[in-house]
Amino acid sequence: MNDFTNKVETIRKDFPILDQAIGKHPLIYLDNGATTQMPTAVLDALSAHYRTDNANVHRGIHTLSERSTASFEQARKTVQSFVNAMSSDEIVFTGGTTDSINMVARAWEDRVKPDATIAVTALEHHANFVPWQQLCKRTGARFEVIPLTPEGDVDLDALGEVLHTQNVSLVAVAHVSNVLGCVSPIRTIADMAHEHDAHLLVDAAQSIRHENVDVQELDCDFLCFSGHKMLGPTGIGVLYGKRDILDELSPVRFGGEMVDKVSTAETTFEEPPLRFEAGTPNYSGAIALAAAIDYIESTGRADIAAYEHELTAYAERALESVEGVRVLGKPAVRAGCLSFTVDDVHPFDLATFMDKQGVALRSGNQCAQPLLHEVYKVQNVTRLSPAFYNTTTEVDSCIDLLARTVAMLRAAR
Amino acid sequence: MNDFTNKVETIRKDFPILDQAIGKHPLIYLDNGATTQMPTAVLDALSAHYRTDNANVHRGIHTLSERSTASFEQARKTVQSFVNAMSSDEIVFTGGTTDSINMVARAWEDRVKPDATIAVTALEHHANFVPWQQLCKRTGARFEVIPLTPEGDVDLDALGEVLHTQNVSLVAVAHVSNVLGCVSPIRTIADMAHEHDAHLLVDAAQSIRHENVDVQELDCDFLCFSGHKMLGPTGIGVLYGKRDILDELSPVRFGGEMVDKVSTAETTFEEPPLRFEAGTPNYSGAIALAAAIDYIESTGRADIAAYEHELTAYAERALESVEGVRVLGKPAVRAGCLSFTVDDVHPFDLATFMDKQGVALRSGNQCAQPLLHEVYKVQNVTRLSPAFYNTTTEVDSCIDLLARTVAMLRAAR
Repeated sequence: MNDFTNKVETIRKDFPILDQAIGKHPLIYLDNGATTQMPTAVLDALSAHYRTDNANVHRGIHTLSERSTASFEQARKTVQSFVNAMSSDEIVFTGGTTDSINMVARAWEDRVKPDATIAVTALEHHANFVPWQQLCKRTGARFEVIPLTPEGDVDLDALGEVLHTQNVSLVAVAHVSNVLGCVSPIRTIADMAHEHDAHLLVDAAQSIRHENVDVQELDCDFLCFSGHKMLGPTGIGVLYGKRDILDELSPVRFGGEMVDKVSTAETTFEEPPLRFEAGTPNYSGAIALAAAIDYIESTGRADIAAYEHELTAYAERALESVEGVRVLGKPAVRAGCLSFTVDDVHPFDLATFMDKQGVALRSGNQCAQPLLHEVYKVQNVTRLSPAFYNTTTEVDSCIDLLARTVAMLRAAR
Repeated sequence: MNDFTNKVETIRKDFPILDQAIGKHPLIYLDNGATTQMPTAVLDALSAHYRTDNANVHRGIHTLSERSTASFEQARKTVQSFVNAMSSDEIVFTGGTTDSINMVARAWEDRVKPDATIAVTALEHHANFVPWQQLCKRTGARFEVIPLTPEGDVDLDALGEVLHTQNVSLVAVAHVSNVLGCVSPIRTIADMAHEHDAHLLVDAAQSIRHENVDVQELDCDFLCFSGHKMLGPTGIGVLYGKRDILDELSPVRFGGEMVDKVSTAETTFEEPPLRFEAGTPNYSGAIALAAAIDYIESTGRADIAAYEHELTAYAERALESVEGVRVLGKPAVRAGCLSFTVDDVHPFDLATFMDKQGVALRSGNQCAQPLLHEVYKVQNVTRLSPAFYNTTTEVDSCIDLLARTVAMLRAAR
């Protein structure tokens, strides 16, 4: 482990929720792929906003509204800087990753001809699978699912073949799989897509906290992520879109903020990003998200990334020593999470017994039924997803408890 | 004023934001139609959730996830009880009123035949106007704007005529206008609509805090509102829909939570309300919204309503004494807000000078361009919208400062 290890105990003090017992056992929270915890600094920023500045944004000519608007637009700049967008106009605030993807999928409807293909990969979360499948159903476009290599990475040869032989309008791919934890080579995929005039949307929900997400370096056309998976609150997310593409897209939701002129006869719309932010935005959520970004930056984004990579690898090695455990995939680069099955043990039983010992894991289909059912031929898995506030001691305890629980459950059969 | 007056000073202690100076002047916040302030109890509930229970809902088998899910589903029951829905399955959590209306307008697309009419009224906020206008553009349906009486109420005779002569699929109407403050007779409109097999959607954004919103009594088919206009946070809203109608509607956004089975070939969906909640919901927002409802209930919903009605009437009488002021409309029942113009004074100048004296009013088109431009033939107005934590002393100060500011601005011309 790197020097970061020494900082973790200090960092943990910023996360009051971690310091609690589940029954008689200390909480070991390893479900960060679902929701990360919020440091006190973010909660304080949210609280300070509501206690001193809260007012609706953009439309008011009074001090509170001006302060609220300034904080909200500063949050947009903070996000811009965090993902290295060219302009803050490329940052649209949404309700979350799912919301962002759905917005693009709905707006894309105008651009998809019936002979077009929308390509996703076999490892996508339902959020980056079903919106495109349904878009294809509505438009008659072809829905192509790019297979994986035996190791669990996106099969780039298969993607190349599809791009070469079909009229691909858009490729939608996860930066990091929420099941396998594999990191996809986004820049390579972007170059391949663009060579064939296809656009690329990246689901960065699982990568935004621990990968270097630089949209100019990745050269993706859209990138989507959520606040609650990066120390921020629920109900806030981001849609990054290249300015020229956002300019071309029609809005898909309508209301205040996003209009220019409204009459009974017709309505004209604002420029991006406002065009895509109908109604009162979740400005307090955006302000808290910016505080989360500040926290990540001040903690050290690269250090967090390195530590989380190492902690995941550490957990993987330890897990493999447990009898009957099968970790899904062996991707080239794994980050943030890994999923496994245990011979003769149901994931729900495992999670239940682990919870009784204080360990929070996630068992289920991980919102990735196509991957689990069609690729790995399993119904459910258990996922372990550490964050930078987890320690090797916690991982050791988890694996130790897991080994005993597995032995107990297998013996009881 | 009623007995509530004596409680207001105590109530104000629950709202720390109100106790501040703008420059050298005490803040007089009268922009509650845009955003209400959050009592400490709501902020504490939000904070407690993040400090002790935060985890993703529904999909986890561990203690934090179970606590988080229980609080989230309890919030749904709290909302159900607050609007007196038959079942908590009729309560869909959304990002806000605009989001709720857009969801219905998108889902309604399947049901609208080209010979159908969608009817809105001339007083609608853009959020309840533009989504229907755009739906009509997409489907070829007729977009009918019901006019107002000279007093500023919805012209029920005109509505009756439209229902009688056209094939109306849906009527969309605000419970309370965000400009005029008029309270529409929703039950009467519901009966008229249903008699002609039309459905009714109610925009309750401006009524939810201070009217008795009982969906069974109102007999509306849909009702939409936001957390941030009823002491809750931004980024959370509600779509109430009658169960049998929600059952018939297809989902419009796709992702985790809302699916049943997903395969490459096809996807099946959950029952309502989950069918309409794609992705991680804003569960912490919902939990805070429930705390806001608890606060309103414990303060006394009927008392709040009566006091806000009286305070609005009090402000109206006082405003009418200011030379050059013209209050828009003279509706049968006015609640929560009123808008006005001042001869020879631009609303932006007025708001700017009032702000310098600590008074937060809202100037602009109030997201109601059709009402302002087509009905009242004005570009912008100034709006005064009190809440139950405002005092008559504040209203007196506001009107006094307004009279002086108006005199000064008129003299300076």
